[in-house]
Amino acid sequence: MPSYNLCILGFGNVGQALVRHLQLKTTELREQYDITWRLTGVATRRMGWIADSDGLDTTSLLAGQLPPVSSALNVREWLSLAQADVLFELTSTDASTGQPAIDHIRTALEYGAHAITANKGTVVHAYEELNHLARERGKRFLFEATVMGGAPVFSLFQEALPATKVLSFRGLPNSTCNVIIERMEQGKNFSEALQVAQSLGIVETDPTLDVDGWDAALKLCAISTVLMGVPIRPADVQRQGVRDLDPETLRAARAAGKPFKLVASLERTANGVQARVQPEQIAAGDPLSGVNSGSMLGHFVTDMLPGLTVALHVPDDPTAGPDVTAYDVLADFLRAVR
Amino acid sequence: MPSYNLCILGFGNVGQALVRHLQLKTTELREQYDITWRLTGVATRRMGWIADSDGLDTTSLLAGQLPPVSSALNVREWLSLAQADVLFELTSTDASTGQPAIDHIRTALEYGAHAITANKGTVVHAYEELNHLARERGKRFLFEATVMGGAPVFSLFQEALPATKVLSFRGLPNSTCNVIIERMEQGKNFSEALQVAQSLGIVETDPTLDVDGWDAALKLCAISTVLMGVPIRPADVQRQGVRDLDPETLRAARAAGKPFKLVASLERTANGVQARVQPEQIAAGDPLSGVNSGSMLGHFVTDMLPGLTVALHVPDDPTAGPDVTAYDVLADFLRAVR
Repeated sequence: MPSYNLCILGFGNVGQALVRHLQLKTTELREQYDITWRLTGVATRRMGWIADSDGLDTTSLLAGQLPPVSSALNVREWLSLAQADVLFELTSTDASTGQPAIDHIRTALEYGAHAITANKGTVVHAYEELNHLARERGKRFLFEATVMGGAPVFSLFQEALPATKVLSFRGLPNSTCNVIIERMEQGKNFSEALQVAQSLGIVETDPTLDVDGWDAALKLCAISTVLMGVPIRPADVQRQGVRDLDPETLRAARAAGKPFKLVASLERTANGVQARVQPEQIAAGDPLSGVNSGSMLGHFVTDMLPGLTVALHVPDDPTAGPDVTAYDVLADFLRAVR
Repeated sequence: MPSYNLCILGFGNVGQALVRHLQLKTTELREQYDITWRLTGVATRRMGWIADSDGLDTTSLLAGQLPPVSSALNVREWLSLAQADVLFELTSTDASTGQPAIDHIRTALEYGAHAITANKGTVVHAYEELNHLARERGKRFLFEATVMGGAPVFSLFQEALPATKVLSFRGLPNSTCNVIIERMEQGKNFSEALQVAQSLGIVETDPTLDVDGWDAALKLCAISTVLMGVPIRPADVQRQGVRDLDPETLRAARAAGKPFKLVASLERTANGVQARVQPEQIAAGDPLSGVNSGSMLGHFVTDMLPGLTVALHVPDDPTAGPDVTAYDVLADFLRAVR
């Protein structure tokens, strides 16, 4: 039975949730997938390069008891000390460059490990290069967690919907904005609503990424690049966030049964795609209407299916988002090695 | 490049749509999947056992110009004359026994062909046996088209959501009933609404299968058997159809923003599952609300994802249903051989 040495770079909420999932699923992975695993490396800027090719004690690690730092000075040396088979790249996203995550993934693939990431920047800024490198090395570069963490998007088309072409996309890929809108409908102003969302732990460290639509724009770029074959960058997206929405207008729209949501859309044009993020009213019966504030949703029109919707409903709970994102990362691991 | 000999048993709307899809995707299958195909057998009770291992002329066939019938006297001889690699079993469903489709699939697997079906009866009445036989012979028994034709359900969990356990299901798996309810809301009585649905070509030959909830019950049985590991039969489903719904009540519910839909649900219990089909009111924001009359939808609660919804939106059009069902059958073919 193959055993895989796993390394996690970036050990925040998602990385910790991933280790809990791995612990929980150990028996299932062994019995149903013939897979065993050891965590042989964990690294963050704060913790340093922890590595042990015999396997780290995950329970101590989750309790905050850290083993001594290794002699590694960089990602490459760390992967080597950890004898890594898989790198989980879980550092936070730099929207404008995708760095240093892109370098981490390049290093892992060149070292000979599968690279799995939750970092949108790597897909938006380096999909072609990293995908090509992975194929060349016979490894996988997987990133299901980057868009609608928890809901299958890339694996849905790559595995469950073969020979399908995506013609257009319309969705609610950023639940944070919809939580903010829902709180504003309930009487809060924008700043108060943002504070509520922050207290739920669902806002990016830099809140402009969420509220000005950058996060949704990055996700559109990833979908356009990977599923529509049209690489676009955030600057190509017409973008309007939720900052200037007026609570009165939002309340009236909700009362009329057509609430506002931050909608992201992609349409094929003669030369490529038109990409747009903006608040829109959603009528009853619209495929985008079956959601609560915490939901993420994508609606795809394809050449074979006139309209397919995938939605993930996540409770307003600080642990729910990292948990489902970490599930996607785990699923990518199983896809990479099976 | 491998070439596959395909045989279609039952050449109604879905079978014909499958041949059109195969024609349309020929280049894509060759270039992206390294697959070529020939249709070497077609059979129906009316047409007889048509077989030609050199390949039939699909365009003539779709135009109704039939080649002479072969000397085959049964499925086994027909598959042999056609040198079949894949059987598409597309005969109509016998809800109470699953026959003769089960025998057709058993014969195909024993002969050494993959068996792909749109026939719910085969999954409900013989999943364990046929799945076991397929594994034993190194072939696949696939049936994505049996539940919510077009929307990935079985392949979603088997391929895109590894290591996930389905805890409960709630959905709208029968669009026909929801078309009938919507017409009743618009002022028609039950018989008139049924006639509209029949004129759209979306009602089973025996309409009681749809309107009394048998079709939805069969789909619940398939989901429970395959995705929850609890084999149940239609008689185990608490079942109430749409026949006795009152147009006034339906209109009032719609006006109040909580329209009725025929809802099918599965809940795990101490001993197995509780399965139920019945009309229920759907409030705004419910995962089941984002649909129009022709939509099919499934909402899954799993151990890893708190709520995942998949919905397929199909226009009220006689060709739309067979087209999406035939896509599922095509996708199963690609899964079987890749």
